[in-house]
Amino acid sequence: MKRTVYFVSESTGITAETLGHSLLSQFDTVEFEQVYMPYINTELRATALTHRMHEAFERDGGRPIVFATMLNQDIAAILKAGNCYYLELFEGFVEPLSAELGVPPSRESGRSHAITKPSYYTKRIDAINFAMANDDGVRPDNLKHADLVLVGVSRSGKTPTSLYLAMHYGLRAANYPITEEDFEKGDLPAEVWSAREKMFALTIDPQRLHAIREERRPGSEYASIRRCQHDIRLAQTMFRRMEVPTFDTTNQSIEEISAQILRNLKSNPALAVHRS
Amino acid sequence: MKRTVYFVSESTGITAETLGHSLLSQFDTVEFEQVYMPYINTELRATALTHRMHEAFERDGGRPIVFATMLNQDIAAILKAGNCYYLELFEGFVEPLSAELGVPPSRESGRSHAITKPSYYTKRIDAINFAMANDDGVRPDNLKHADLVLVGVSRSGKTPTSLYLAMHYGLRAANYPITEEDFEKGDLPAEVWSAREKMFALTIDPQRLHAIREERRPGSEYASIRRCQHDIRLAQTMFRRMEVPTFDTTNQSIEEISAQILRNLKSNPALAVHRS
Repeated sequence: MKRTVYFVSESTGITAETLGHSLLSQFDTVEFEQVYMPYINTELRATALTHRMHEAFERDGGRPIVFATMLNQDIAAILKAGNCYYLELFEGFVEPLSAELGVPPSRESGRSHAITKPSYYTKRIDAINFAMANDDGVRPDNLKHADLVLVGVSRSGKTPTSLYLAMHYGLRAANYPITEEDFEKGDLPAEVWSAREKMFALTIDPQRLHAIREERRPGSEYASIRRCQHDIRLAQTMFRRMEVPTFDTTNQSIEEISAQILRNLKSNPALAVHRS
Repeated sequence: MKRTVYFVSESTGITAETLGHSLLSQFDTVEFEQVYMPYINTELRATALTHRMHEAFERDGGRPIVFATMLNQDIAAILKAGNCYYLELFEGFVEPLSAELGVPPSRESGRSHAITKPSYYTKRIDAINFAMANDDGVRPDNLKHADLVLVGVSRSGKTPTSLYLAMHYGLRAANYPITEEDFEKGDLPAEVWSAREKMFALTIDPQRLHAIREERRPGSEYASIRRCQHDIRLAQTMFRRMEVPTFDTTNQSIEEISAQILRNLKSNPALAVHRS
């Protein structure tokens, strides 16, 4: 049986989507059709959504599920009156938290993903630009300006991980791919060694690497399983010699790798991660 | 008064952080020290965290707040017994949802940000690579392969927005900066016009653009307020002529701009956004 799910909010809907998506992951035997509905901030839009919900009900044979974070009670009432199972994700926590803090909530919607601290937002954008400019080891002399450096063979997941850390945590993440020349020398350049204290290595199963490289350059020596095994073996020797924390990206998402990197970064007080 | 806040989970902690951060945004008169604590998945780690919580209590003069999404009740019990105000964000919704769906929850932790659907994860990584390869209009002939195209003057926010849409929604987002040559001709190239149906324009206040460009090339003609006003005026004329939806990035975050783009994309059924 399939159920349609709506992630609904007056603003970006990211909170509703993140928690809703997490909750759905507990029910992997059910097929969900997930629909993201940001900016349901007028009664007209809410009414239009109830019509869509009714269509989904008739199509699925079960009422749609609504994960909502709504602050406007008039708009919320329209949705609740629709043909759906409505779960408000936010409201139940606001009052207890208000009591604990001893201050009333602002009741303003859309503050969570807005630019409330311009200096932090600018830091994030600058970090994205830094990650773009320092992708793929184009400027090894720049590693000294990085908050962290990812090292690994070509296609081991460095670029998306650097961008994720920059985008979400404002960290200046550079990455350095181990080159043909490094493999021949059996060692990494001095600039890379100097960044060792803030370095994280990414490794990957040679079979998986082979599949990824085949997508990129089919039938090439670069993509061959032999070459992938060779690259990974030498790279791991280098990582052990440098004694850098190593993470395996074979079965882990960029979110999981990033969270592990942040855990390790925290031991350095200068890099404690405080989002706001 | 300052309060220390911990976002705690057995896995990435992204859900705890997202909802917790949203809730805190309702209390902007309180100063929060926010600490991200992923992978609290052993009793030892939980105990160590209670020691940190106690230190925070003594330092702040108020008990720390813990936003948690814990599935392991033994680990959760250790945290709850600590000197803190503990809010479990996940558990309260699992049972009602289970009743509605008529199936029991899996009770497995860490599924939300893991690679549960490899094909969707691969789509996201491919989209990031596409956004990187098609940043800054380097290959206008590639616009036909994009799910959407962002157009705007240099430094109007195209790159971070493209990367955000690729990373979070697996959308192949290309971007095209309006060039000096385009301004001289007063029109955009044919390849760009062809992508009009999936195009979104970004605009920005000339004063803000001036400040951003000054950071990049201080004192240059490119950064001058006169040039910024000129670029924005001409760009807006082009956007009106092409009749593309236009969003102002002056005071809006990449999350807000992206959510608005997704709202508009949804009118195209081929691009309905379904995350899973």
